[in-house]
Amino acid sequence: MRTPIEYVDASAEVRVVYDDIMATRKTDWINNYWKVLAHHPPTLRRMWATSKEVMGPGALDALTKELVYMAVSVTNGCAYCIASHGAAARKKGLTPEQHAELVAIIGLANETNRHAAALELQIDEQFL
Amino acid sequence: MRTPIEYVDASAEVRVVYDDIMATRKTDWINNYWKVLAHHPPTLRRMWATSKEVMGPGALDALTKELVYMAVSVTNGCAYCIASHGAAARKKGLTPEQHAELVAIIGLANETNRHAAALELQIDEQFL
Amino acid sequence: MRTPIEYVDASAEVRVVYDDIMATRKTDWINNYWKVLAHHPPTLRRMWATSKEVMGPGALDALTKELVYMAVSVTNGCAYCIASHGAAARKKGLTPEQHAELVAIIGLANETNRHAAALELQIDEQFL
Amino acid sequence: MRTPIEYVDASAEVRVVYDDIMATRKTDWINNYWKVLAHHPPTLRRMWATSKEVMGPGALDALTKELVYMAVSVTNGCAYCIASHGAAARKKGLTPEQHAELVAIIGLANETNRHAAALELQIDEQFL
Amino acid sequence: MRTPIEYVDASAEVRVVYDDIMATRKTDWINNYWKVLAHHPPTLRRMWATSKEVMGPGALDALTKELVYMAVSVTNGCAYCIASHGAAARKKGLTPEQHAELVAIIGLANETNRHAAALELQIDEQFL
Amino acid sequence: MRTPIEYVDASAEVRVVYDDIMATRKTDWINNYWKVLAHHPPTLRRMWATSKEVMGPGALDALTKELVYMAVSVTNGCAYCIASHGAAARKKGLTPEQHAELVAIIGLANETNRHAAALELQIDEQFL
Repeated sequence: MRTPIEYVDASAEVRVVYDDIMATRKTDWINNYWKVLAHHPPTLRRMWATSKEVMGPGALDALTKELVYMAVSVTNGCAYCIASHGAAARKKGLTPEQHAELVAIIGLANETNRHAAALELQIDEQFL
Repeated sequence: MRTPIEYVDASAEVRVVYDDIMATRKTDWINNYWKVLAHHPPTLRRMWATSKEVMGPGALDALTKELVYMAVSVTNGCAYCIASHGAAARKKGLTPEQHAELVAIIGLANETNRHAAALELQIDEQFL
Repeated sequence: MRTPIEYVDASAEVRVVYDDIMATRKTDWINNYWKVLAHHPPTLRRMWATSKEVMGPGALDALTKELVYMAVSVTNGCAYCIASHGAAARKKGLTPEQHAELVAIIGLANETNRHAAALELQIDEQFL
Repeated sequence: MRTPIEYVDASAEVRVVYDDIMATRKTDWINNYWKVLAHHPPTLRRMWATSKEVMGPGALDALTKELVYMAVSVTNGCAYCIASHGAAARKKGLTPEQHAELVAIIGLANETNRHAAALELQIDEQFL
Repeated sequence: MRTPIEYVDASAEVRVVYDDIMATRKTDWINNYWKVLAHHPPTLRRMWATSKEVMGPGALDALTKELVYMAVSVTNGCAYCIASHGAAARKKGLTPEQHAELVAIIGLANETNRHAAALELQIDEQFL
Repeated sequence: MRTPIEYVDASAEVRVVYDDIMATRKTDWINNYWKVLAHHPPTLRRMWATSKEVMGPGALDALTKELVYMAVSVTNGCAYCIASHGAAARKKGLTPEQHAELVAIIGLANETNRHAAALELQIDEQFL
């Protein structure tokens, strides 16, 4: 069930999504996430539409969006997502210095999140 | 063990940290995280030094750093951290539109992270 | 400490559990989880007894139980558990269409769980 | 930013979604998740469309879908989601006995997921 | 379904477990975990037997066992478990200084766990 | 960005930290965590200082500290951390029997943490 579906083997319905992914990203290949999702065309279509809407142009710039994505993926320990969105972030201009800061913040937030839980902190009224 | 230590009750050692927090943040109050951490001065001192280094000026701007922090805190479900860093982000200029996009990206990344796990995805060689 | 203990090398105490696993599952082999757990016979015995009680016949049917197990394992990103319980679910009749829906629900729930945290939702009184 | 938007205060765009939620669910009220999401109409619309597609009629029955949702929500410790989907599951027929079994399976899977990590298990070739 | 079942309202079957909990712990009351679990006597009985076996005398001392329990509970953000096992740890001799170190280690491990994920570390051959 | 930096290729600034790691641990090699962190010297320096302070001599003994570290790493499913801190724990005297108990407690705590969430437990007043 996990074999990626290559373009040549894809149905017309799936190719429409693949074509839009490549056109939107200005690339000539599709990564495994989409090629495995393609076993269930409704999910492929829905996830691509969602991805375009959420990760597309908006009030946050493209690189910032990737950094948020990375922060989630690292916190969840998703190796695939770290690799794919790390590549996306570099393509959008992430520098080694910015990457180092990103990693440091993710680490710190995971640390203080647990301090907050362990110390059973009450939310300050100034934050309510 | 969880009672916040107020400034008037704090030791000289703790007050030095409190003073630096207020001066750095240009505020006249301290939130509960630091006031509870103050029961163990070495941890208070270390965490504040770490926080200043990691969250201070660098290659990523101040608001972006807060968004990364929020992404981690939401993924971990840390209510205290969401409240405190949500306030920090708004203070640094987060707009309602940006907040809505942030929430949408965090949600999407948590969704696709699980798709990647469930589908047992292989990392594409292009990402290695 | 992590070498699986094969049947031929197992003590009588461990073989009793292995025999029951194979008889209960109507198979002639044991998967690594049990063979590594076998280094500590009390844990092997306890976990097998628990597994039989919790995953055995009850008010929920066998396939539904596996789907719940999968939902947890995917959320935790446990590759071993996803592989082993995925196999168990297919053996109990999971179809590709059902699998696709399962993956979609797991993804959606992980997404909305974070929306709920990020938006600091109050529980509606109708749910209390 | 977190105040729920009531029907009387909602824009026409938001009311369309609210109306569809109530019609689909055959209820006369909307829970806080949607009323807070309504601050960002594109997200409200997208999440409701996704929810209808993923949780609607399919290869898995309605109650099973809720159980999977619960398994994720409990694993993530999302109190709001546990309350809201617990109510949904009861409405769809979940019995106390089934609920008790659900809770036991979720607990067991979380336990064995960590055993698998701690014991650094190799995936059996039979599962590949 | 969540109302705690008090001793006076409990069946004989449940009272046997309650009596053993109080005798084992040398206390005259039962905490909510067991009183809510009591709605499903087989789970109550199984979890108490498991708890006695796992948390009882062994190769690790009683306080160390509680610290491990706390580390898990804090990492998962389980407020109930942090409160109940924090009390148990104090009863078994946890000092404020030890508690502060425990919190610091839990925080640090959560931080470095994410560094390891973000940096896509290869396991050193010396650790294999 | 993830290539480990070997001693011979390291800057003087990085070698100072490497030397201190080897001297403190009484070993003649450095594991990948530090060698990859070395791409960003400020983070390398800060994390090593933190590690020495948190994991060094204190109110909890060295082995107990490693067990807490393991409990977090297993709960987060961090394979690298489980391998490296498992080795550290064995070096500090962890016996196979103690390891088996550790694994059992981690599993049990993850199980009961989810029971607590699923059953929406109220914290007993005795724990407040």
